[in-house]
Amino acid sequence: MRDFLPADKARRERVLAVIRQRYRAHGFDEIETPVVEEYARLHAGIGGDNEKLAFNILKRGMDAEAVRAAADDQSALTDLGLRYDLTVPLARFYASHRAELPTVFRAIQIAPVWRAERPQKGRYRQFVQCDIDIIGDASARAEAELVVATLDAVDALGLEGGSVRINDRRALDWMLDSFGFTPDERPGVLITIDKLDKIGPEGIVAELRDRGATPAAVDAFEAFLRRPMTLEYNPYGERQIRKALPEGAPDDVVAHLVGIGQAVVASRGRVSDLVADVPLVFDPFLVRGMGYYTGTIFELAHPSVSYSLGGGGRYDGMIGRFLGQDVPAVGFSIGFERIVDLVTSAEADGAAAVVLVHDRDVPVGELLALKAVLVAEGSRVRLEQRTKNLKPLLERAASDGYSAFATVSAGASRESLEIKQLA
Amino acid sequence: MRDFLPADKARRERVLAVIRQRYRAHGFDEIETPVVEEYARLHAGIGGDNEKLAFNILKRGMDAEAVRAAADDQSALTDLGLRYDLTVPLARFYASHRAELPTVFRAIQIAPVWRAERPQKGRYRQFVQCDIDIIGDASARAEAELVVATLDAVDALGLEGGSVRINDRRALDWMLDSFGFTPDERPGVLITIDKLDKIGPEGIVAELRDRGATPAAVDAFEAFLRRPMTLEYNPYGERQIRKALPEGAPDDVVAHLVGIGQAVVASRGRVSDLVADVPLVFDPFLVRGMGYYTGTIFELAHPSVSYSLGGGGRYDGMIGRFLGQDVPAVGFSIGFERIVDLVTSAEADGAAAVVLVHDRDVPVGELLALKAVLVAEGSRVRLEQRTKNLKPLLERAASDGYSAFATVSAGASRESLEIKQLA
Repeated sequence: MRDFLPADKARRERVLAVIRQRYRAHGFDEIETPVVEEYARLHAGIGGDNEKLAFNILKRGMDAEAVRAAADDQSALTDLGLRYDLTVPLARFYASHRAELPTVFRAIQIAPVWRAERPQKGRYRQFVQCDIDIIGDASARAEAELVVATLDAVDALGLEGGSVRINDRRALDWMLDSFGFTPDERPGVLITIDKLDKIGPEGIVAELRDRGATPAAVDAFEAFLRRPMTLEYNPYGERQIRKALPEGAPDDVVAHLVGIGQAVVASRGRVSDLVADVPLVFDPFLVRGMGYYTGTIFELAHPSVSYSLGGGGRYDGMIGRFLGQDVPAVGFSIGFERIVDLVTSAEADGAAAVVLVHDRDVPVGELLALKAVLVAEGSRVRLEQRTKNLKPLLERAASDGYSAFATVSAGASRESLEIKQLA
Repeated sequence: MRDFLPADKARRERVLAVIRQRYRAHGFDEIETPVVEEYARLHAGIGGDNEKLAFNILKRGMDAEAVRAAADDQSALTDLGLRYDLTVPLARFYASHRAELPTVFRAIQIAPVWRAERPQKGRYRQFVQCDIDIIGDASARAEAELVVATLDAVDALGLEGGSVRINDRRALDWMLDSFGFTPDERPGVLITIDKLDKIGPEGIVAELRDRGATPAAVDAFEAFLRRPMTLEYNPYGERQIRKALPEGAPDDVVAHLVGIGQAVVASRGRVSDLVADVPLVFDPFLVRGMGYYTGTIFELAHPSVSYSLGGGGRYDGMIGRFLGQDVPAVGFSIGFERIVDLVTSAEADGAAAVVLVHDRDVPVGELLALKAVLVAEGSRVRLEQRTKNLKPLLERAASDGYSAFATVSAGASRESLEIKQLA
């Protein structure tokens, strides 16, 4: 877990403000849930591997006997935990407040989550997620709104060139069935397919044979992988989608994918047969790890990095776990910690920022009166007592985002103040 | 702990944005620390009673033997905890990063804290604090900058009429000494004095006698309380300060208070003998609970409520606990949960907010294209499928902050769209 110094914190807040503002523009409404959820809810089996990474909170008011009794089942030592994602809390929130929410509820959640992972480069135990979710809309409109809003936020951050890869878990499942893999083999085969970027088609086939997957199915898969193909099909024509899949793909799944693609294209106001015109590509081998996805899955990519900057998908079954009644839901999450590192623009908040470097003998009242005048003019103002060597003081101020300075002696007034730009 | 629905969350974010923006204008820089701190640090004796209210996190990877061994000392079950205030983390932060910070460091912290209190009206287990602190400045300038920035933030929220009560722990201690209370009696006497608002001077004297405090000291205190007096002295003239205290108050303490008062007055650009002109009053009986205060103490008041909206003070000893070297420090905290309830202005973020109510048969692509045009024009846009009775749909949209709507049939274009104001 990390401390954030002023320059970093200011950048993080700026990026969050842009994301929040764009999501709001697209009709999403922000909500907030407590950081802490009930232990039982965090360990209901819907958080996948993340459940094991939850920080659990020690129960209060236990006597020595209660602690001893919990030695063999440590879950008795805890009743609450820190959330490890924003999806489980959202499902709980929706089930609690459904009557107070619009029929189609578009939620923004921008908040930290915690996972007890071994610290390593790029992985943090506390990190911020920016999620948008649409609950109550089973149609392709929901996916299209998520994709359009996400790409708009990425553009607004100055990260032009972002794109979304899209697939459907039902297409994946059907494809594996059509090759002849058994339902039991599916999870293992998916884990292997997820490595396509890294080990290539030959690696995939070799790994599946090593694992002892049904040989005829591996052969069928190998034949399919050997076709002339690309990994980037545009998803707004049925012909393209069908070309990317084995023959006979289910009509409803293809129609849903085409619906998403066409709506995104319409929204971006461009129609073309060229994939490059629309930052949305159909990738029939995109997997995404989470077990709860039931349909569409997404991943956000950017040419400057090889890893994904976010992702999401449809999880129609999950809300029902809390509500006792199925409700369609789909979400897209930006990996804030990854994206904030790519935003280089040091754009300040627009206000002039002035350091007043004052002599030791300037009365405090005079100083604060001068500061008040500049603040009233709209400036951000820091007071600094003059040091022998001004250079380090001014350099630090510049690195803290200050753009100008003025020296102040006793008796100075706003009129006598000479404000100079910092180099 | 509470969920926040869209209207509440939007109001909270607006209030936070105003506070953050005003604090930044006054030269404060925002930082962030992890929600979780080491157990030992949270229980080092500087958090006062709040230490007992910390949520502690269950240690990971303990075997049954380790749990049994911890039965009689439950602190062995935990290694981390949720912070119960922002002051202990700030002291730790400053000690870690001092070399990277300006000599006089003005910090903003806007973040949640957790306390395992019994839930009751107006008390929450998770709540947001808005703290500003100045580290490295022992002069009255620091207090004056805090008071001016805090009052500016309160004004900017539309809560005109806020005021700050000020006192100094050293003045309180000296006063009790001068009456003849022993140092051992001090904490108890302060607890009684803290009730002056509620039980009045007679109640104070009666309670002190009941407690068996030194009788001659209680007599002296009673005589002092019987003088003609007010609880509101303006703090920018030495004469006023001295009038509020027993004779012979220490010069350095009086000078510090006068310095703060005069600087605040100078900053607000008004000099007058009338207390009402400056929202700062000297209250010689203001106590503030925290044990770590060493000098000035503040409280933020507003005429619309009887409880305080925030407070703070000087805690010159605390940073030294982490740094091994004393550094002056003073802070002012706005009680966000209390102030957010007073802010009634439903001011939106300025953007037009339009609900597009569409027929079921409008193709998704058309809808998203229309939405994209309106978003590009700067509007916030929500799509809603038409319901038989439009009224509840539009009422909900209005309560969610939408100001206009348009109905959309198949084939609609931006030009054909008739946008009507919501009543």
